[in-house]
Amino acid sequence: MERMNIAILGCGTVGGGVARIILDMNNELNNRANATIQLKKIVELSPKTAAKRFDIPMEYFCGNGNDLSKNEASAYITKLIADPDIDLIVETIGGKGDFVHQTCIDIVKAGKHLVTANKALLAERGSDIFNMADKKEVKIGFEAAVCGAIPIIKTIKENLTGDKILSISGIMNGTSNYILSQMQNENLEFDTALKLAQESGYAEADPTLDINGGDAGHKLILLIKLAYGIDVSMDDLSMIGIQDIKKEDIEFAKEIDAKIKLICYAKKVNGDIYATVRPMMVKNSNFLSNVNGATNAVRLNNKYSGIHILVGKGAGSSETAMSIVSDIVFIARYGKKISNTAQKQERNFADARQFVFPYIITFHTADMPGTTGFITTAIGKQNINIDTVSHNRHNDDKALFSVATMPSTLEKIESAIEEIKRERPGMLLSEPKIMPILY
Amino acid sequence: MERMNIAILGCGTVGGGVARIILDMNNELNNRANATIQLKKIVELSPKTAAKRFDIPMEYFCGNGNDLSKNEASAYITKLIADPDIDLIVETIGGKGDFVHQTCIDIVKAGKHLVTANKALLAERGSDIFNMADKKEVKIGFEAAVCGAIPIIKTIKENLTGDKILSISGIMNGTSNYILSQMQNENLEFDTALKLAQESGYAEADPTLDINGGDAGHKLILLIKLAYGIDVSMDDLSMIGIQDIKKEDIEFAKEIDAKIKLICYAKKVNGDIYATVRPMMVKNSNFLSNVNGATNAVRLNNKYSGIHILVGKGAGSSETAMSIVSDIVFIARYGKKISNTAQKQERNFADARQFVFPYIITFHTADMPGTTGFITTAIGKQNINIDTVSHNRHNDDKALFSVATMPSTLEKIESAIEEIKRERPGMLLSEPKIMPILY
Repeated sequence: MERMNIAILGCGTVGGGVARIILDMNNELNNRANATIQLKKIVELSPKTAAKRFDIPMEYFCGNGNDLSKNEASAYITKLIADPDIDLIVETIGGKGDFVHQTCIDIVKAGKHLVTANKALLAERGSDIFNMADKKEVKIGFEAAVCGAIPIIKTIKENLTGDKILSISGIMNGTSNYILSQMQNENLEFDTALKLAQESGYAEADPTLDINGGDAGHKLILLIKLAYGIDVSMDDLSMIGIQDIKKEDIEFAKEIDAKIKLICYAKKVNGDIYATVRPMMVKNSNFLSNVNGATNAVRLNNKYSGIHILVGKGAGSSETAMSIVSDIVFIARYGKKISNTAQKQERNFADARQFVFPYIITFHTADMPGTTGFITTAIGKQNINIDTVSHNRHNDDKALFSVATMPSTLEKIESAIEEIKRERPGMLLSEPKIMPILY
Repeated sequence: MERMNIAILGCGTVGGGVARIILDMNNELNNRANATIQLKKIVELSPKTAAKRFDIPMEYFCGNGNDLSKNEASAYITKLIADPDIDLIVETIGGKGDFVHQTCIDIVKAGKHLVTANKALLAERGSDIFNMADKKEVKIGFEAAVCGAIPIIKTIKENLTGDKILSISGIMNGTSNYILSQMQNENLEFDTALKLAQESGYAEADPTLDINGGDAGHKLILLIKLAYGIDVSMDDLSMIGIQDIKKEDIEFAKEIDAKIKLICYAKKVNGDIYATVRPMMVKNSNFLSNVNGATNAVRLNNKYSGIHILVGKGAGSSETAMSIVSDIVFIARYGKKISNTAQKQERNFADARQFVFPYIITFHTADMPGTTGFITTAIGKQNINIDTVSHNRHNDDKALFSVATMPSTLEKIESAIEEIKRERPGMLLSEPKIMPILY
């Protein structure tokens, strides 16, 4: 049996979980990998805390179990990277800073496999690391970087290889889905739901990346690279978070039998790739509308095999660790035969404004006769058919209503809104909110 | 690049779909497999029909496109098995008869890989084939044999290798799920729903294996072999079909916020494996209750990563073919490094009567005072707590009601029923129906 000696950088929530699983089920892992998987060393600033939390014998920690300064930890990492006794390094340091970026390059440059859950690093600064890994013929496992426990990476790379992926849609950020579910079920405003999520541990003190779509965007970038063979930057991606969703939007969704979800969406149209992360009104007939709380889900629409849905835990210690350990087993078993990413494709990344969806547009207006007529006429002038106009919530001298359109480009809808602003200054009391309707 | 020359036996719904996909996307497949996948020959009794239906050039068919007798087809198969130019054979003959059994043994004995969707053959007579394949170091791909397009085999074998599967539950027969969904949504009796399913092509003229749980049982046997490393026979498996489900049962399910589904269930308890195929009342809070029509779904509960759900098409030409083609790519890419099945485990296959579930029991009785009391007392005497007793449907001098219990073994429930029959002959007008409640 081949040897697969492991080092883990960082022993927090994820790293500690990885160590625990490897120690717990070593025999099964060896059988499944047809290799001898052995945990050799862990680099951790506070080994005593980690050892206690995950019940890991002190001998595994570099530095005899003493707390390490950053410099000492860095020196141990350098030593492990140079150590011929180590075959694969699990990076759970996190972040996309220069240190972790260089560390990952050094790992693969030294001819060692790399397994990581670091979506920000791989999505924004991954190219150097992937290129170096290919040059050195080592493997990068990143199953844990997209939707935690859901094996969506191997599902695309290894399981559905006899098909073409037409579109990807998914709920890939548990925090924002938890907040939206709470708003929906408990009738809360965004700020209250966020505070509750923070109190119950579903949102961090700084929830920015979770609620602004950034974290979901990182995951979508990695899936697009695999499914369509193109590199997309965060700047390319049309991205809107959930921070502006209000109770009234949830109610408009209910009126059209839908729920608001933060959706990662990518689609191939005539060879071009369209992609976006934004709140969508997901019809209740779509499985994704039933996915509540911190759960993640991915829906693939494939040319030959139709709809596939995968649902599972998007985060958590042992959940994310499980994906990392499965990557270790896969690399140990199949080694050099694995391909790190999909073959590069010459494809256009298209402007999301050209993307065709039915949309729902929410208007805050002064409450006076002729408003609905003027607005729906402006939309009609763009050749957009209107599906429904909602019940109007009159309040004092203000009106609030939504217009659901038949499929149209976002660009046309924006043109209609421009016309309304130009021809009737003062009619719109705030910027209309535009959301795709997902069937 | 390595060579992977393919022959296909049978060019019906599935075989034709495989040929079509290989011809359609040959470049992509070669890239994904890192091998040259080439369709070489097809053996089919009626090549003209198949060629037209799937747009396959006549040159691929053995016998210059002429119709073949069974003997001629058999001779071509023998020739292909002996042909050093063929590396992998796709079997889509179907059935579990001696001819197809021997053919599959001969294929692997000749050192060729085998890919098949034949669940009946592998589940009931697979051991010889798997043993011979292991001896000859060739691979058997059978992703298509379990739940069509859903990649549940690779999900268990390759994707979730860092975990232990605690339980498997699933809707693995599209025909019975279609019938139950129709009964539920259209308020139909079983016979009417079956007839409709046959008319719309969801059930075959002889639907026996679909509605008696046999087809689902075959799939569960294959999953148990992979997940728990033990061989289970159809006789071992406690199996009940949907043919006795009545409108009234659907109504009792509604009363407890559940839907009736034909569920494949396997669970590991203290190292023993319990498994059963039977109609269960699936609570609406369980994702499986939302899976309607011919769709399949599998739910895994894992030690480290919790619940995983996979949903997809359970049958269909290109759907099943997609899984076969994905197996071809996987075998071409990873070859000898693949393991055909899980490591054999020394585990007990436990009696399903010892399996603990909350149960629902439906009683048809004479309508007289004291009946409910006697029945619930008999259940209580077995130390089973009662959860709810349904609204009683009195009708003439008959009564019909259901009792939902707290978790209990099936054995205890059967003992209670025995007591009722012994002590009050004539009280039960028919055999009570016992269904597990799945949360």
